[in-house]
Amino acid sequence: MERVCVLGAGSWGTTVAALAGRRGPTALWCRRPELAAALAASRRNPDYVPDLVLPEGVRVTASLAEAVQGASLVVLAVPSHGFRQVVREARAWLPPGVPVVSLAKGLERSSHRRMTEVLAEELPQCPRGVLSGPNLAHEIAAGQPAATVVAMTDPSAAQLAQRLLHTDRLRIYTNDDVVGCEVAGVTKNVLALAAGMAVGLGLGDSSLAALVTRGLAELGRLVVALGGERLTVTSLAGVGDLVATCTSPHSRNRSAGVALGQGRPLAEILGGSRMVVEGVASARPLVELAAHHGVELPIGQQVLDVLEGRTTVVEAVDRLMSRTAKAEFWDLGAPVPAEGPGPDGPGRDGPMR
Amino acid sequence: MERVCVLGAGSWGTTVAALAGRRGPTALWCRRPELAAALAASRRNPDYVPDLVLPEGVRVTASLAEAVQGASLVVLAVPSHGFRQVVREARAWLPPGVPVVSLAKGLERSSHRRMTEVLAEELPQCPRGVLSGPNLAHEIAAGQPAATVVAMTDPSAAQLAQRLLHTDRLRIYTNDDVVGCEVAGVTKNVLALAAGMAVGLGLGDSSLAALVTRGLAELGRLVVALGGERLTVTSLAGVGDLVATCTSPHSRNRSAGVALGQGRPLAEILGGSRMVVEGVASARPLVELAAHHGVELPIGQQVLDVLEGRTTVVEAVDRLMSRTAKAEFWDLGAPVPAEGPGPDGPGRDGPMR
Repeated sequence: MERVCVLGAGSWGTTVAALAGRRGPTALWCRRPELAAALAASRRNPDYVPDLVLPEGVRVTASLAEAVQGASLVVLAVPSHGFRQVVREARAWLPPGVPVVSLAKGLERSSHRRMTEVLAEELPQCPRGVLSGPNLAHEIAAGQPAATVVAMTDPSAAQLAQRLLHTDRLRIYTNDDVVGCEVAGVTKNVLALAAGMAVGLGLGDSSLAALVTRGLAELGRLVVALGGERLTVTSLAGVGDLVATCTSPHSRNRSAGVALGQGRPLAEILGGSRMVVEGVASARPLVELAAHHGVELPIGQQVLDVLEGRTTVVEAVDRLMSRTAKAEFWDLGAPVPAEGPGPDGPGRDGPMR
Repeated sequence: MERVCVLGAGSWGTTVAALAGRRGPTALWCRRPELAAALAASRRNPDYVPDLVLPEGVRVTASLAEAVQGASLVVLAVPSHGFRQVVREARAWLPPGVPVVSLAKGLERSSHRRMTEVLAEELPQCPRGVLSGPNLAHEIAAGQPAATVVAMTDPSAAQLAQRLLHTDRLRIYTNDDVVGCEVAGVTKNVLALAAGMAVGLGLGDSSLAALVTRGLAELGRLVVALGGERLTVTSLAGVGDLVATCTSPHSRNRSAGVALGQGRPLAEILGGSRMVVEGVASARPLVELAAHHGVELPIGQQVLDVLEGRTTVVEAVDRLMSRTAKAEFWDLGAPVPAEGPGPDGPGRDGPMR
């Protein structure tokens, strides 16, 4: 019988394992043996998804060999900073041809690699892809109706992943634009930090929606520059995930941004949570990767400047809501209005070029 | 000196008049003489925007002649159901060439006409357009940073509107896709009713983001079918306004949807507010207009069926979050997965075709 293997027992990994475990046998691996034992005994993961109960189909283990061997599908639910290491440890038990799906929405810090690029280097003979969409783990765990995308270039691998992970409540759509879906997933976490900062400073829903619109344009330019498809911007993995992450109070990256906007120091924010805030780690590699491809990320740059202490949240959000907007819109090549009110004046609409 | 005339003293009309009044002389017309007198005396409009104080530049009047005569720009801030009547009453004092900008986001019920089509019929010699974007009146009135679009086909008229309405806090971008911006503005109000219904039933941010993504696809198909530009979907007047309206608890249309989701009768909801809920009035003409152009609006149709009592909110939201999704995505011509789990199974991602 086809078996799913989920590597990583954070909130999303645990949730996906629970979904797969309702359909059939599923292994959930976590590195710490004491956590594995606690999960196996209590069937709960109280630090990450307190309300979830693991179904009988899920077997929890701290043994990579036991988790990976014989799996029909491997789901990688570890953060980007530990991703390559886990893949290397797992590959001895992974035969060629087993599809591997990444849930991570970050870049490798040193190399700027996307997670599927890491997979291509470490597991060249396995079909690879990402699962990405507007999916807040605790809501999916609670059975809220939702939808997501499995993006893989190998259609039969995509269909396998779809079949093994699809449930009545989480509908899975396939998409062949791996680059676009993956870039969108990384970028939205950085954009959500900016959205959170604006909210933390007390800005309202009109400001937030303008920022999300600019963010979508920024995300779209990067997707296209990196070889993804423009259409992906409008998919569940594009605008869907961006909207969820930027507007939901339950989004981790947005919450970190809110705390920054409220004046809390970054170290305290990161220290206060077991959860990884991918946008914080990805901001620098993302801005650098974009620059390497000739793309400016005005929002990403402001986020990075705040994270690295070169500007204040107030200054950054002020630039995002006012002066920089002009530059972005005018960069699109549209003419400056002849009667425009000067350098800080209005531009021409056209965020998505 | 150039003078702005705003017809209609609801929340958005009053707010726009206050913005224009900070820059220069502005007339604000309201039909009811007693309200005009109260506004003129108190400089406040407590029923609509309680925290706003009208600046000295705003003169309030109940005389259309006084408001319109000599205006350089006319802003029409009356709901769609009273729009044509006000235009007819005002046109005696409106010389050819004066730009007219509509703030209404609805369709004329009997004719299915957009407001700029009504303007073309009633004032053929005046340049016309719309102002549309993610702008919650009370937030703009409070000076929150925001952005919006003036869409006009006549570029000098658009620049005039931009110059007279632009402020440091509300940045105005011009756009020449009047049809796209206007259709987006109407459609998002109907979609926001669906979003509100989902929220009212207790669905969370993942469900909401999936619905917004589907809504954007629906909006985009209609924009293109009616002759607008696809690019407008990603503008402030497209995704920006849709996100604000579907996610903000302060959105009027969303709030009406929430109340429906909580089981309150439509008549009670509409009776309890002075504000016009444009999405309720526009649902039928919008669905009919779309059908006339060969476009199905699955979300719009469910909203209409709820409003007209043919289905319950529970059934409608269930269809939107599950079964209908399949149809929408499959309608795009993508193949049904060979191994898909049957008629209610997953489809292929591609909401925006």
